[in-house]
Amino acid sequence: MSDFAPANPEFARQVRDMFARQPFMVFIGAELSAVEPGRAEIRLPYRSDLTQHNGYFHGGIIGTLADNAGGSAAYSLLPADKGALTVEFKVNIIAPGQGQWLVARGEVVRSGRTLVVSRSNVFAVKDGNEKHCATCLMTLAVVTMPAAA
Amino acid sequence: MSDFAPANPEFARQVRDMFARQPFMVFIGAELSAVEPGRAEIRLPYRSDLTQHNGYFHGGIIGTLADNAGGSAAYSLLPADKGALTVEFKVNIIAPGQGQWLVARGEVVRSGRTLVVSRSNVFAVKDGNEKHCATCLMTLAVVTMPAAA
Amino acid sequence: MSDFAPANPEFARQVRDMFARQPFMVFIGAELSAVEPGRAEIRLPYRSDLTQHNGYFHGGIIGTLADNAGGSAAYSLLPADKGALTVEFKVNIIAPGQGQWLVARGEVVRSGRTLVVSRSNVFAVKDGNEKHCATCLMTLAVVTMPAAA
Amino acid sequence: MSDFAPANPEFARQVRDMFARQPFMVFIGAELSAVEPGRAEIRLPYRSDLTQHNGYFHGGIIGTLADNAGGSAAYSLLPADKGALTVEFKVNIIAPGQGQWLVARGEVVRSGRTLVVSRSNVFAVKDGNEKHCATCLMTLAVVTMPAAA
Repeated sequence: MSDFAPANPEFARQVRDMFARQPFMVFIGAELSAVEPGRAEIRLPYRSDLTQHNGYFHGGIIGTLADNAGGSAAYSLLPADKGALTVEFKVNIIAPGQGQWLVARGEVVRSGRTLVVSRSNVFAVKDGNEKHCATCLMTLAVVTMPAAA
Repeated sequence: MSDFAPANPEFARQVRDMFARQPFMVFIGAELSAVEPGRAEIRLPYRSDLTQHNGYFHGGIIGTLADNAGGSAAYSLLPADKGALTVEFKVNIIAPGQGQWLVARGEVVRSGRTLVVSRSNVFAVKDGNEKHCATCLMTLAVVTMPAAA
Repeated sequence: MSDFAPANPEFARQVRDMFARQPFMVFIGAELSAVEPGRAEIRLPYRSDLTQHNGYFHGGIIGTLADNAGGSAAYSLLPADKGALTVEFKVNIIAPGQGQWLVARGEVVRSGRTLVVSRSNVFAVKDGNEKHCATCLMTLAVVTMPAAA
Repeated sequence: MSDFAPANPEFARQVRDMFARQPFMVFIGAELSAVEPGRAEIRLPYRSDLTQHNGYFHGGIIGTLADNAGGSAAYSLLPADKGALTVEFKVNIIAPGQGQWLVARGEVVRSGRTLVVSRSNVFAVKDGNEKHCATCLMTLAVVTMPAAA
């Protein structure tokens, strides 16, 4: 789970470009805060628009970040003409998403030719302290991207 | 999976009230379109803000609806002083979310004293035709709600 | 989830042959009791060897049947030179496996060119009454089988 | 995920006793090879009875070990009068189970009052080399054990 070699030396730009082209991630205010080969981190500042009935980050937001962090980690290892589509993701919510930030960290477990398995963890950051609020295990399919995409 | 008895005769209002108190669901424009004992349906009109890089509904949105439809179905069976928190959810994305609407339908598989298992399916509606785009299996915990909630 | 066309007219024999070639299924005494296009049923009589600490069917056995029923359902739709490998499966245990038999019924949710999504349900049969004890959602990869296999 | 305090100082004996009382684990020849607070390891030697069509360990066996390793890890933290029942488990198979042994290592991610989240990894050991063949994320319910159990 530690030493992966990216197929594209421009892997970080590749992941950042893809992230920036997702209107929903821009809409909620998420930013890709770190990319390494086989790893990615997403940060999201608190907004009341993103909450559930109790004022904490909504579970759908937590799932969105978990999925995207694992997917971005997978994408960091792929050649320039490939993409990673989520086949399925499974998220355990283990604590409320309470804080000024959410941070999601994804990492590749296994990178295959046609399928990638990633996992990710989401933390709520309150007054500088990270609390583990969700853990995710997911599968992605490697697909050929349209030339114009 | 068919005939559940709601503990609260006002179950439909109970679910609608909870849904309305989730700012994130209002933010994305989702509406609770149907509630029956052990079942719930959510509809979401297309907006470009909710898309991924290819202009289709974002996977995080699909997961959010899947989770919420299954959770609303679970909540429809609970007494007035209880709530249902997502323990975990697992979503398979089986087709792109391409269309003018998403519709998510959740139903309870088993309603226990402390845990509820629900499943849900999400469909993309394009020109009046529903296409199955995701299926979800999830677990919820029954919790006592704060009196003021 | 209802009308699938098998690629191989000998689909039932195809699935039965594959089932019979799995020593572990023979070892536990499981039998493939029905095959239709996109559906399969497995039955397993009770033996104390297959139990957990309380004398009920072991969770590992329930998971094995759930996986195999969904996989057999997927395999029923594939051409003769293809096979279906489990990518991942997710099982919710909703009641103890208590009875004289377990019956697992799998069905295909979506059959794609490279991936198949199946679901399955496991029932414990006690004195002729079926009790729902597990539900499963899973992903399989379509692979080309070795000619000699 | 590292420093858990067991509620029972006899936690290792507690886990070993429970493991030994599961006939199915004895039947397949599995042994509990290590227990620490919040962690457990299970080993299983190869037998042709435990294989699938290609002679490798059957996916149902891999799932059984993954489930049991995560469950044993959870149980190691519980007081003497409590038990841990699997609510659900999700397993990704990432490589064939090919080797002379399987080793499954489970660890607790979060230990709550009523629910525990564990994860586990299964490795196939061939000629002394471990190959990662599955990863699992699961939820358990804490239950009060019958006095006589």
